[in-house]
Amino acid sequence: MASRVRVRAYSSSANLGPGFDALALAHTSFYDEVEAWIEPGTGGVMIEAVYGPYASGAGGAETARRAVEALLELTSSRLEEERIVLKVYKGVPPGLGLGSSGASAAAAAKAAALLLGLDAGTELLIEAAGRGEAAAAGSPHYDNVAASLLGGLAVVAPDREGRLYASRIDIDAWVTVYVPRVRVQTAAKTKLMREILPEKVALGTAARNWARLALLVAAAARGDLRLLGIMMMQDEIIEPVRQKYVPCFTEVKRAALDAGALGVAISGAGPSVIAVSRDERTARNVAEALLDSCACCDPDIVKVAHVAPGASQV
Amino acid sequence: MASRVRVRAYSSSANLGPGFDALALAHTSFYDEVEAWIEPGTGGVMIEAVYGPYASGAGGAETARRAVEALLELTSSRLEEERIVLKVYKGVPPGLGLGSSGASAAAAAKAAALLLGLDAGTELLIEAAGRGEAAAAGSPHYDNVAASLLGGLAVVAPDREGRLYASRIDIDAWVTVYVPRVRVQTAAKTKLMREILPEKVALGTAARNWARLALLVAAAARGDLRLLGIMMMQDEIIEPVRQKYVPCFTEVKRAALDAGALGVAISGAGPSVIAVSRDERTARNVAEALLDSCACCDPDIVKVAHVAPGASQV
Repeated sequence: MASRVRVRAYSSSANLGPGFDALALAHTSFYDEVEAWIEPGTGGVMIEAVYGPYASGAGGAETARRAVEALLELTSSRLEEERIVLKVYKGVPPGLGLGSSGASAAAAAKAAALLLGLDAGTELLIEAAGRGEAAAAGSPHYDNVAASLLGGLAVVAPDREGRLYASRIDIDAWVTVYVPRVRVQTAAKTKLMREILPEKVALGTAARNWARLALLVAAAARGDLRLLGIMMMQDEIIEPVRQKYVPCFTEVKRAALDAGALGVAISGAGPSVIAVSRDERTARNVAEALLDSCACCDPDIVKVAHVAPGASQV
Repeated sequence: MASRVRVRAYSSSANLGPGFDALALAHTSFYDEVEAWIEPGTGGVMIEAVYGPYASGAGGAETARRAVEALLELTSSRLEEERIVLKVYKGVPPGLGLGSSGASAAAAAKAAALLLGLDAGTELLIEAAGRGEAAAAGSPHYDNVAASLLGGLAVVAPDREGRLYASRIDIDAWVTVYVPRVRVQTAAKTKLMREILPEKVALGTAARNWARLALLVAAAARGDLRLLGIMMMQDEIIEPVRQKYVPCFTEVKRAALDAGALGVAISGAGPSVIAVSRDERTARNVAEALLDSCACCDPDIVKVAHVAPGASQV
């Protein structure tokens, strides 16, 4: 049991094309940090401060608090004459499809587990962080939470009783994250981006999607980034519906591929776009292409980053 | 260019629960062999003989012939004053969900490629074998074909233009294949087993399925057979509809799990059932349980086998 811990958790991009609600890739573009310690008190979890570039209006602090509460509940941990205090550094911009609340929740759950010396397995932390996110933000994104907790390419699925299972695939890739100059209302965006999806899909369409996702995962596992990139771009269900909300998606994609990216997809529910490249130089070329030579592209932020490690103490 | 080749291709089990039309596991339970050579002639592909335990009425020879024709077409190969002659050993029982025609097609395509010294990549062989199967048997099963060609756990998916991509995951597992005492009409069975499937699925159900499949693949890639086994048993779409055509499926599954199997699923469209175990001893225990201690089970065949290698010369 530590007296004070500070945990960093990185941003992530869910879906990568066919992986809706199934996987996310953690990347070092942005990060949140949660510092946690124990004080005398009467139980519960308190936020002492939220700071950093996205401290205001982000909901990150509430997500962090709820994640720790969920962890305490799931592990039947009792705090009687003390309380957990959190200080949240909010570095992942919210509302852009970059797993912002997932990063807060992941950092908080991991920090609390370390602080209390809880022997909480990965799946339990994902469950706690996801519940925290759901309580604070309306719906859980287990994919983002899993990526921020595990790092790498994280795959998460429930069994038929709703119990979560997760696995991490290490991949050595660089990403270019493109955020268009468009302002979105965080909660409303997530809701709208779900509402526009079809309620049902033809079995054949669904089967093609899961075959492509399975192949994306197999490709990732063997380090075949070329095939991963191809499969990233085969989604027929989610991205065709959402891409109209991403300004210049077609042009951004074209410019990134022309600059050497292996695959391009909407990051989570958007409006950010993620391009995957084999090496840093290519990822930087992609960034330059999006900043300079793409006539349509109007980036608010462009970041070059590596695949990120999981949430850990700093 | 060889003057005569003989290629063996093994049986396979498609789906493994959530992997409908996406993956199959090759296993050494049964195999087909195709011998191929060139004779003077006026082009084309000829069957000289079909032999072996399932030589009659299997359609294996026609599948093999069509697969070679498809390969010749796909590679723009011309035979002018010669022809290819095939001799087919049919050892995979047809109509049982064990990839029988896929094995014939895979062995034939591979044999022809070796015979003609064609530089045909894996995906091209899968395409040729699949087309051959479709021409002879009504519909292609790229998953079975890919498994028989590649060996291991084979994942196959089309891009949006219909071009195939495939990848193989090596896993070290043993299987027990259970074939119930029920006779089926091969072509009619395959057709019926597709007709009973739902035309559409709810997006949420589809997404849970693809998340589980993605996790099954991730688990396979890291050798986590326990998680692979759990995910094999989470299909909510295909198996619930098909299991009523598998006599005593619930009892077979229970008995196999009680004997130590990690996962149990209908093999392809059934009626065979495949159980995955960590080692040979467990797989044999599973077989014994199905033969002896399961009151309901009435096996026609029970086989213990290892994951198979890909189609290759013998």
